[in-house]
Amino acid sequence: MMRRDRFLLVATLTAVFSADLYFILLPKLQSMRQTWGHSCTCDSNNLSLPRLEGLATPQLSNWTYVPLLDGTAAYEPAEGDAKLEKLFAHPLYNIQTPVLGPEGRLLQTEQLIEYYRKKVSRWERHMKFYNEAAAVANITVTKHEMIYDPDASWLKFHLGINRFALYSRDDLSIVQLLKDMQNMTIVSADYTQDEKALKGACDCTQVVKPSGHHLKLALKMRNFAKVMFKPMRQQRDEETPEDFFYFVDFQRHNAEIAAFHLDRILDFRRVPPVAGRRVNITGEVLQVAHSEDLRAVFFTSPANNTCFFAKCLYVCKTEYAVCGSPDLLEGSLSAYLPGLSIAPRLSIPNPWTRSYTFAGREEWEVNPFYCDTIKQLYPYNSGNRLLNIIDMSIFDFLIGNMDRHHYEIFTKFGDEGFLLHLDNARGFGKHTRDEMSILAPLSQCCMIKRSTLLRLQLLAQSEFRLSDVMRESLKGDPLWPVLTEPHLLALDRRLQKVLRVVQRCIRRLGDDEVITKDFIKPTARPTATEMKKVR
Amino acid sequence: MMRRDRFLLVATLTAVFSADLYFILLPKLQSMRQTWGHSCTCDSNNLSLPRLEGLATPQLSNWTYVPLLDGTAAYEPAEGDAKLEKLFAHPLYNIQTPVLGPEGRLLQTEQLIEYYRKKVSRWERHMKFYNEAAAVANITVTKHEMIYDPDASWLKFHLGINRFALYSRDDLSIVQLLKDMQNMTIVSADYTQDEKALKGACDCTQVVKPSGHHLKLALKMRNFAKVMFKPMRQQRDEETPEDFFYFVDFQRHNAEIAAFHLDRILDFRRVPPVAGRRVNITGEVLQVAHSEDLRAVFFTSPANNTCFFAKCLYVCKTEYAVCGSPDLLEGSLSAYLPGLSIAPRLSIPNPWTRSYTFAGREEWEVNPFYCDTIKQLYPYNSGNRLLNIIDMSIFDFLIGNMDRHHYEIFTKFGDEGFLLHLDNARGFGKHTRDEMSILAPLSQCCMIKRSTLLRLQLLAQSEFRLSDVMRESLKGDPLWPVLTEPHLLALDRRLQKVLRVVQRCIRRLGDDEVITKDFIKPTARPTATEMKKVR
Repeated sequence: MMRRDRFLLVATLTAVFSADLYFILLPKLQSMRQTWGHSCTCDSNNLSLPRLEGLATPQLSNWTYVPLLDGTAAYEPAEGDAKLEKLFAHPLYNIQTPVLGPEGRLLQTEQLIEYYRKKVSRWERHMKFYNEAAAVANITVTKHEMIYDPDASWLKFHLGINRFALYSRDDLSIVQLLKDMQNMTIVSADYTQDEKALKGACDCTQVVKPSGHHLKLALKMRNFAKVMFKPMRQQRDEETPEDFFYFVDFQRHNAEIAAFHLDRILDFRRVPPVAGRRVNITGEVLQVAHSEDLRAVFFTSPANNTCFFAKCLYVCKTEYAVCGSPDLLEGSLSAYLPGLSIAPRLSIPNPWTRSYTFAGREEWEVNPFYCDTIKQLYPYNSGNRLLNIIDMSIFDFLIGNMDRHHYEIFTKFGDEGFLLHLDNARGFGKHTRDEMSILAPLSQCCMIKRSTLLRLQLLAQSEFRLSDVMRESLKGDPLWPVLTEPHLLALDRRLQKVLRVVQRCIRRLGDDEVITKDFIKPTARPTATEMKKVR
Repeated sequence: MMRRDRFLLVATLTAVFSADLYFILLPKLQSMRQTWGHSCTCDSNNLSLPRLEGLATPQLSNWTYVPLLDGTAAYEPAEGDAKLEKLFAHPLYNIQTPVLGPEGRLLQTEQLIEYYRKKVSRWERHMKFYNEAAAVANITVTKHEMIYDPDASWLKFHLGINRFALYSRDDLSIVQLLKDMQNMTIVSADYTQDEKALKGACDCTQVVKPSGHHLKLALKMRNFAKVMFKPMRQQRDEETPEDFFYFVDFQRHNAEIAAFHLDRILDFRRVPPVAGRRVNITGEVLQVAHSEDLRAVFFTSPANNTCFFAKCLYVCKTEYAVCGSPDLLEGSLSAYLPGLSIAPRLSIPNPWTRSYTFAGREEWEVNPFYCDTIKQLYPYNSGNRLLNIIDMSIFDFLIGNMDRHHYEIFTKFGDEGFLLHLDNARGFGKHTRDEMSILAPLSQCCMIKRSTLLRLQLLAQSEFRLSDVMRESLKGDPLWPVLTEPHLLALDRRLQKVLRVVQRCIRRLGDDEVITKDFIKPTARPTATEMKKVR
């Protein structure tokens, strides 16, 4: 008993000391360094490297920290606008994943090439029939030359998906994919599969049916890349009205774009690539729409703009229409994941889902010990699943997304696979509001991956400030500025709030209890309250 | 033949002289007077009275000009803010209608009192059953003491409806009715009859189904007055988006209020009284709603405001909801007309209706001789009907209402009855836009009642300026300012445009052809083009 007490005491002291070091001494040192930096800039470069290297090098069991061999990309903090490069050069962003065997990759090359070939022949068959039908019906269709390209960026993106993330940090095909989505010729437009399944009918007895849902379209590029197009429905400076429930909020194309950039900056890489684009909805949508249903929803507005409205019957009104100016319309293009036939996914209800009713409350909203229950339940009782949920809640809190009712995983990677952060269009609705309840998984479970925490702390430093790296990252998008300044600055404020929640947990439970070494620490361990009960 | 020619010559010369007097000499005189006024104010009052009296006294066959007996109300132009009083004291606004026999009134006193008694007993029966049912279902209902008042303002309004207008200029019960609507206790709230007929279903195959339609409610006051409540859905400074079709535009409560004031200022008196009111949608709607269906659409928003949404299934979403702050919500209250059982009305398609489709065009939009066709058709081939349509088009042009698909008349007054200008909530959408096509009946038929023209000319004078009298009139409403300044100023600009259209007609066809003596000149006479053909 004495030995155990002594052990606990040492653990507590270590935790307190670590916390002190991280949260008190370090910021002080840093602010001092900044003050010095102003009067004497020559030392700053030398100062920061060892300091950060010494403190922030993660001790992650399955991950190996490999100093970069290529000297040019080595970590070297730069001034001014180059914070993003500096961030991605930081050791924390250069932890190498273990070598991947076939089991570590979502798809094998042969399998995907076979899938691509089938796509091509299906398209050719479709076009043959369609052109005949169009000739009979006297419909003019824009025809584009298709290309079969085994080096297509979307193919490489699909091949790069592995058990750790959707893409690797240094994957150049992602950069190419973003460029292709921004520029490549669009050869066809259609409703998405979700839409087709509805067949134009909607269940309107469900008051809380998500809105705006039905304005998204599936576009195909000339190299057979498939993207989901969400048109702009809200101006950048428009805030979500305060009386809106999260489930009726607009879907924002810019939120989709910004969420991809944020996810990459947080090094999660769980959001498929998203690019902004000004789409010509006449030439690039209407004239390449093969479905009569889709063509029928296009019209010319009183202001002579081309518009289209949602197909679903209950949104059969032009109030829901979006219009080009006169044809150009901003939108987000999200890369499709590999088809479910070759890469099946599971959609799992989020344990911290909200009540999609006007007055209902879910258990987590009323029971402060909800996490203890969840920790006992499969699949949250072992492995990383709960920590992944907490990562997701941090991501959602930063973007202000309250609409995470489900999450998806690839069946292939089993319960240890990462969670996909799909459908982020309801983020960035109100820059003034920090919805603390989104952080419930973190604040109720009081645990966080060490790697996540270290990156959050890094992004809270003025050297890498989250808003600055986001601003810089978004400059690469044609729809820059994707977010208004208040939304960017809200990220910094929210990041501080995440760190404060972690701090409070550490104060209450100790460093070791809260900060979990990724990939080793099991999540199903008695909580502090339970331990007290045992004593 | 000679005699007829000489008569025509004299008529033409008179017309030219009158036009010259009205449009050239008078404005010159007036601007000179204004210049003098600045250096010498003492004469202004004396100058204007004889001038206006001498020129503007209308020579309307069935109407008799009776100078006011009451000296205090006699016409005497005042300075500054009292333009409205001055306007209503003007001789043009003091033409007496002929003495009305029973046939001239819509309802007889006994008939209405009997109707009122039936209402009261129906209410008592309803409340008896309802209270029993509520007790069983454990529903708390606010109960209000009802009053049976044979002197109620709404009763007097109904009794005052006659073959010339909905109310007389000097009817004090209208003032009382506005006050009652603004202040009287609301004892019940329900869907309107239109709504009930729909039974919650909507025909969504009709893409162009008017929107917002379904947020209106019928409210009952404690003296059994019934009003239609249209809640605020758009901020005063919000303009209708340029891509909206007229048929999907919002309904604006402030447009309803402003339209009533404008109609009264134009001396049409064809819009039932409308007052603004801040309604407590919890205490004055939810808690007095006896219909379970209606109570079910109420909810509390994330910002803790009380809200309700439309019942119709295709608008079953909170995007359509309106919310109080936290309970108070602005709205327009329009007095109900007498029930159809005692005062049946006909709803007649407007010959100048628009195509309620995205691309369709109606004949009047493409055929410049459309009016010639209409003039041959019953009931537009005789009497005042076409002139009434033209009055209505001027009214709609001034408010910018493109949504006049039907008009109503009281069956009792037959084809010579006035047209009701009901449902004006789609006016005042865009202050920047003057939709000239609304004036098609005027510009295509090139005719106007002399009495209407004289009043329009009066309102174009700086002494009475339409925007000034409107601003003043709206000051009486609790929701003042009902219209923003740009909307008020648009009225002046549009009035000028109406007068220019009349001027162009006169230049083309002559005064006598265009300006029609009310109640005598038949409308079915050969047009100028036809006359040319004859010669």
